[in-house]
Amino acid sequence: MTTKKELPLSQVYGLLEPGPVVLLTTARAGQPNVMPMSWHTMLEFMPPLVGCVVSSQNYTFGILRRTGECVINIPAVELAKKMVACGNASGKTVDKFKTYGLTPVSAALVQAPLIAECFANLECKVVDRKLVTKYNFFVLEVIQAWIDPRRKRPQTLHHHGQGIFTVPGRTLKLPSPKTSF
Amino acid sequence: MTTKKELPLSQVYGLLEPGPVVLLTTARAGQPNVMPMSWHTMLEFMPPLVGCVVSSQNYTFGILRRTGECVINIPAVELAKKMVACGNASGKTVDKFKTYGLTPVSAALVQAPLIAECFANLECKVVDRKLVTKYNFFVLEVIQAWIDPRRKRPQTLHHHGQGIFTVPGRTLKLPSPKTSF
Repeated sequence: MTTKKELPLSQVYGLLEPGPVVLLTTARAGQPNVMPMSWHTMLEFMPPLVGCVVSSQNYTFGILRRTGECVINIPAVELAKKMVACGNASGKTVDKFKTYGLTPVSAALVQAPLIAECFANLECKVVDRKLVTKYNFFVLEVIQAWIDPRRKRPQTLHHHGQGIFTVPGRTLKLPSPKTSF
Repeated sequence: MTTKKELPLSQVYGLLEPGPVVLLTTARAGQPNVMPMSWHTMLEFMPPLVGCVVSSQNYTFGILRRTGECVINIPAVELAKKMVACGNASGKTVDKFKTYGLTPVSAALVQAPLIAECFANLECKVVDRKLVTKYNFFVLEVIQAWIDPRRKRPQTLHHHGQGIFTVPGRTLKLPSPKTSF
């Protein structure tokens, strides 16, 4: 992670709140896996809590439930094709890191790997499973965050359904609201 | 709602998955209120379930908990200033609809109003309160959805923290993934 620096945990919300597609990595017996995910939300600023849905039909589901660890990796537009490929194959039969040319990097605090090609990486532990059975909804705590300081305006991917994605366009600076969103 | 048409509930996910700021309306004894919200996620396609955080410090929180009803209204960029204004005042002391020039329209199935100026409106009922006490997290079911068919590429607002927002830029069409995100 020589090109990345630690991101203060208090700044994590600004990465996830705009709704980017992320790549969720897990590991089972040293074998890393990765899946794209758009169904996530911030739940708390500090410590940063994230809620996310991982379908019980996905290979990742069982690993996440068993290990209680994952990394939320945020890709920019140059990874769009690899991201879609990761959503069209199962880690049960494909080593997606090798097959799609993604580079796993050891995380500091969890077994799941960081994806080197992503501009931000959030190491997470599962802290609440109350809604897992009913909604496949996991509550994660971000315990370590990394960011590439060279990427000033990353072109994140935002899924509108049925393979339509947008990347951010114009930026607006508005008076910061007093209350959280 | 003469300018809007019903949106099939199966298409709701495509509106929320990209992560837009929304305006959440509620009503108490006929008095409507509205607050901006970015902390939300899809939980299920059909029936569409949405999870969202409404801080217990917000006036909306008590109303939502009591009435179990709300509308998720999606603004486009021309409402940016009004959206920020709604986040900087409390419905406890300000009638935000009158003060900021928003038009309440009767919903079909809930007491909370639709905002006429928003290009989409999702009428919701609270269906699960298990994580309300711990995380201020409500599970909503969308029971009726409206969309303005004239808006083809709405410039939704995406909050990056500290008053920085982006609107969608370039669109990508990629092979639709087999699995949900």
